Formats: sequence, C-alpha cells, structure tokens
Amino acid sequence: MEIEMYLNRIRHIQERLSLQEIGAQFFSAVSNFAYLLGVRPLGLERLLLLSIPGKGTPSLIVPKLSEAEFVDFVPHLQISAWEDGEDPLMLVRAEVKQLPTDLPISLDHGVPARVVLDLLHAFPFLAVRIEENAINSLRVSKDASEIQLLQQAGAIADAAIAPAIEGCRSGRTELEIASILIASLLQQGAEPDPPMPIVASGPNGAMPHHRTGHRQLVEGDAVVIDFGGRLNHYYSDITRTIHLGEPDPEFLRVYDVVRTAHAKALAAIKPGIPLGELDIIARDHIARAGYGPYFNHRLGHGLGVDVHEEPYLLSSNREPLRTGMCFSIEPGVYLPGRFGVRIEDCVIVQDTGPLLLTWFPTDLMVK
Amino acid sequence: MEIEMYLNRIRHIQERLSLQEIGAQFFSAVSNFAYLLGVRPLGLERLLLLSIPGKGTPSLIVPKLSEAEFVDFVPHLQISAWEDGEDPLMLVRAEVKQLPTDLPISLDHGVPARVVLDLLHAFPFLAVRIEENAINSLRVSKDASEIQLLQQAGAIADAAIAPAIEGCRSGRTELEIASILIASLLQQGAEPDPPMPIVASGPNGAMPHHRTGHRQLVEGDAVVIDFGGRLNHYYSDITRTIHLGEPDPEFLRVYDVVRTAHAKALAAIKPGIPLGELDIIARDHIARAGYGPYFNHRLGHGLGVDVHEEPYLLSSNREPLRTGMCFSIEPGVYLPGRFGVRIEDCVIVQDTGPLLLTWFPTDLMVK
Repeated sequence: MEIEMYLNRIRHIQERLSLQEIGAQFFSAVSNFAYLLGVRPLGLERLLLLSIPGKGTPSLIVPKLSEAEFVDFVPHLQISAWEDGEDPLMLVRAEVKQLPTDLPISLDHGVPARVVLDLLHAFPFLAVRIEENAINSLRVSKDASEIQLLQQAGAIADAAIAPAIEGCRSGRTELEIASILIASLLQQGAEPDPPMPIVASGPNGAMPHHRTGHRQLVEGDAVVIDFGGRLNHYYSDITRTIHLGEPDPEFLRVYDVVRTAHAKALAAIKPGIPLGELDIIARDHIARAGYGPYFNHRLGHGLGVDVHEEPYLLSSNREPLRTGMCFSIEPGVYLPGRFGVRIEDCVIVQDTGPLLLTWFPTDLMVK
Repeated sequence: MEIEMYLNRIRHIQERLSLQEIGAQFFSAVSNFAYLLGVRPLGLERLLLLSIPGKGTPSLIVPKLSEAEFVDFVPHLQISAWEDGEDPLMLVRAEVKQLPTDLPISLDHGVPARVVLDLLHAFPFLAVRIEENAINSLRVSKDASEIQLLQQAGAIADAAIAPAIEGCRSGRTELEIASILIASLLQQGAEPDPPMPIVASGPNGAMPHHRTGHRQLVEGDAVVIDFGGRLNHYYSDITRTIHLGEPDPEFLRVYDVVRTAHAKALAAIKPGIPLGELDIIARDHIARAGYGPYFNHRLGHGLGVDVHEEPYLLSSNREPLRTGMCFSIEPGVYLPGRFGVRIEDCVIVQDTGPLLLTWFPTDLMVK
C-alpha cells in the first residue's frame, strides 16, 4: 500500500521523462531517496544511485551493507549491490549501456561529480545534465498526507521552542540552549536536522548562519533561535528572537520592523501571485524603515523532505504561488557587531490563504 | 598564529600542485574547509568554493551571509561574496579565467556536479578531474596537535558510551538510547556527528547501517551501539555490542570471534605493513570460524576532520602504514534476521604500535 504511493511517484517521473525525451534520471540526493523510496540513507561516501528510465524498471546501485533497506521494492526495482573494494562506477556504466543512446540523462544535484566525469569519459557523446524539474514539480506540490506530516513536524518544533526560551538566561551557553532543543526534538521522536540548531546570541546574531558555540548569554543580548527537526522524512523550521533584559530603542524598532515584514508577507499569500512578490513586500517594508542593506538573504525557502528545497523566495522569482506549496517566511535584519533579529514560520499555500505550520507567538519576549 | 597553521597547509598544497603541474584545486567539502581554514560551513545548497592556485593568492567564493566567517583570512584570501539571486557559477568562471589555460584543474569530492558541467560547457578544452592526493596526503598524516584533538574527541566518546549502556533495558527504544548518547556528547561540548547514533537492536543489528528507530529493546536482544562526536573539527568513532539477558551459544561464539578479530588487527599495527594486511588478518580469523560471508564491509576507515576519510582498510590496499595515520578497526558479523556484532576503536599509528583513541572495555557486557 505504502509502496504503491512510492511506485506512483516513480511512474509520474517516468511520464515526465518520456514527454521530455530524457532517457533516464539518476538520483543520489538523500531527500530524493526519501521521497521516491521512503528510505533516507546515511549519505556518507559510498555511492548510492537510483536510475529511473523513461520506460522500464528502475535500477538501484547500492552498497552491499545497505541493500536490505530496499528489498521490499523487489521486483519493482532491479538492485545491483556493490561490496567494499569494488568500483561502483562500473555499475553506473553498465546502467548507461542499457539506456537509449540517443537520449540525454538527467541528474539530481546529489549525483557526485566523479560519476559525471566518469560518464563523460566513458561515453563521450552522452548528453548529461543536472535537471530536476521532473521530480521538483512533484515535490513542490504537497498532497494531503504530506501536509499532515508537515503539520506534525511543525507541532514538534512549536513544542520544543518553549523550553529553550525558558532556558535562556545569563551564563548559559549557546550550546546549552541548543541541547534543550535537541533533547525536546528527540523526546518527541524527531531527528534534529540540521543537527545543530542555530543559537546566535548578542553580536553572533548578526551572522544569519552563525555556528552555535560556547559563548555565554549575557544581559542585554538578543538571542536568535533557529532550528527544526525531521519526522517521518518531513522537516520543520522555525526562528524566534528573544531579548535578555531591557532592550534599547533600536532593538525594539528593528524587532517591530522584522515582525511586521513577516506579518505582511504572510498576509499576502494566496494562489496566483508571484513568489517573488512576497520577498518584495517584506524587503520593501524593511528598506523603508532604513534597514534594507541589513536584510542580506532571500525571504524564504521551500520545505518538505529537504529543509531547503524549491521554491525559493527571491524577488526575481516570477513563478506563481500554487496550492500545496510549502515554504518559510523569514525576514531578518542583521547589524554587524551588535545583534540580529529573524522571525520565521513555514506555511502551506491553500486556496483560502496560508496554513501556518508553526504557531508560537511572535510577540517580543523579554526575559 | 593559528592562521599561520592554516596558511602553511595551503602553502603545502600549492607546492604539490606546482610539482604536479596542476593549475589550481577547487574545494567545496566541508571537511576541507575545516582543515584548510578552520571553518566548518553549514554545507547546505548555497555554493561555497575555495580555489587554491599553484601560485598566487587563493580565492574564496562564498554566500554573502557566510562571508563574515572568513574575514580573518584577508588579505591571504581573495573573497568574492555572492548574494541570493546571483549566480555563483559566474564567479567560478571568472576564477578559471585567471588561471593558466594549459594546466588542469583538480576538484575535491565536494565540488557539485553542476559546477563541473558548467565549467566543461564554458571551457570545452579545460581538463577537469577529481584528484585529492595533494590534500589527502597532508590530511592522512596527523601532527601532534591533531593527535591531541583526536584523543580529546575519543575521550568524549568513551565517556558517553557508559551511560548509554547503563540505559539499555527492556522497553526502552533505540531512539531513547541514542538520546542518552547525544545528550552526553552535547554536555561535553561535542557535536553529535553523524547526527544520529546507530542503535541497532535484535535483528536490526544485522544491518551495519541500520537507521535508529522506535523499536523497543527486549530480553534476548544484542544491541549494537555505534556513534561519535565532533570536537574542534575532529571526530571520534566507537562501537560496542552488548546483550540483554542470557546470550545463546551462537551469540557468544560470534562475539568472541569478532572480539578476537579486533584484537588481532590491533596487535598487527606497526609502520610499514600494508593497510590491507589488517583487513586480511581480521577477515581470515572470521572466515576460519565460519562467518566469512557475514562480515560484509571493509575493516575500517580513516578518521580526522571527516568521520570517514582516507585511508580505507580494504584487503586490496597495499599502501604501507605510516606513523600519524588514524583509522578505525571495526570487524563485524551480521546474521540476517537474527543479530549483529561489531566492535570498533580508532587508533593512531605510532612508531611503537597503535595509540588507542577509545579505551572502553571490549569484554562482553550482559545486562
């Protein structure tokens, strides 16, 4: 039954490949394995590659020690397991030899460069390209069961953030706050992923991708807390910014600007408007308050079996919002050497507007 | 001072590139960033690429929102930051245009295939190859400061395994045992990485890369516990197998076979013998006991700024052991549908023999 869902996804991809006259698509990204086969592999150095031909039975090239994870798919999947010491590139070449010679091969972004270089060497006339439209057009549109999984993942993030904020006090380190988040995610059965939450205190908050470390929180810090977890292959992602002690007027101004940008973008969500419009709405609001240069990243990213996936909310993205899309809305303002503020929630586009996946209040919390 | 260490590593690579007549090497693997610049980036979808030319100043292509992590390296590093919405491939092309046109470019394994395909398209006569000898020959030989970091990471793993084994009892889930490990690593200031420890109970133990899940431990289970953490960029990695309740004779036999294989391989470690010899020693012992087909992976892998790196302990590897090498010794026997046994420690090769990085006893623990 569940296998039927995955086989359906594979069939959809095959239809699109046939339409586009692509011979096959090769997949190595762990998220695509989760989406197409319900298995999220370890993703270390051993080559794992799924080949979906336009017609016929898909093939899996898998390290021997992971073969057992895929046996339920036989006979819908032809499995070639390779042992340590063998060269899996020979199996990839053998797979290519079974494909039509006159059609190109598409790759997902996870296929390693060494596979590409080997194929171009072995088959000098083969057309090889990274082209993920077939799978991404499926992945970008979440169905009812996926929406449920995303809501469950969101609820877990909502439940984890409260004790972490509760734990924020002078003397605690960023890593200690991160540990509270991780423990809560694990206790709820979710995997912390990205494995390390971002806890960026004081001036560290001005780095959107700060690496959580040993800095101790002190009175006067803003603290940016950004994290998520994975449950049944689906992610959550949420950010809140709190303040220790009485904030100064500029922090209050920035917080209000970011919060309003977040609210305005959320309010604008409806099917049909261009994705980039949301970025523009938030960015304009921040720019008009004088902080334009300090919002140095896109407004958001898609969310699903990857924590960052299509669609990306860039001003230039003219693709229309469609029902079933899922993405983050996360405006931020970062003042180097001083502090950062970011507020993030993920939503699913519905006919009637946005469905929020996280509900934790965005009111400023001063502790 | 610390920067000097990283600049030295970069200079070493430049010398090797010049000797080998390679124009430049491009790096994108997060572990190579840790090794060469002391920064471990997030490693999500935004392109980050370090170009080390045979001669001259290295260049860094970095997402704007991560630029601040690298400013200490200016002016030793020429930084090109790209903003969301810009195409970083244009920066890669610009970098190639500054390099000698008649020399090949080497890539590390982290450079995405889309970069390779774009370069081959833009520069049809450019020779591009994955070739990591220059950096791996440096990374494989650990210096005194690295040995100290590896010992610290090992000590943290040693300290984490005791409470996890203590926590193994009927009714607990694999994820609950994993949570104990993660909490202990975090409390000691290390990052759990791989993010999810392997806790493989009962029949799950027969899958070397089992994904830790909701199965409850029951009396009669063997439990394979395999995990590590990262501290100051360096990893640990350890595996122990315990038993809940009285083991049957075959489990006892298998445990003894694996433990002796582990001990024999450790005892054979000394500079000069081929790496593959260690695999052969362990494999022969297991095969002579009749379990050869059930040891379905290599004996071990290198350890350093990656949890799996060179050297790999494959029978076919005739490279001699050298002082300063660091790798795991982890024989295992996996009986499908029944149980698995694996015992793993990492060691550093010294003139006098192996220096163990983890010391937790290998005696069978029955609980």
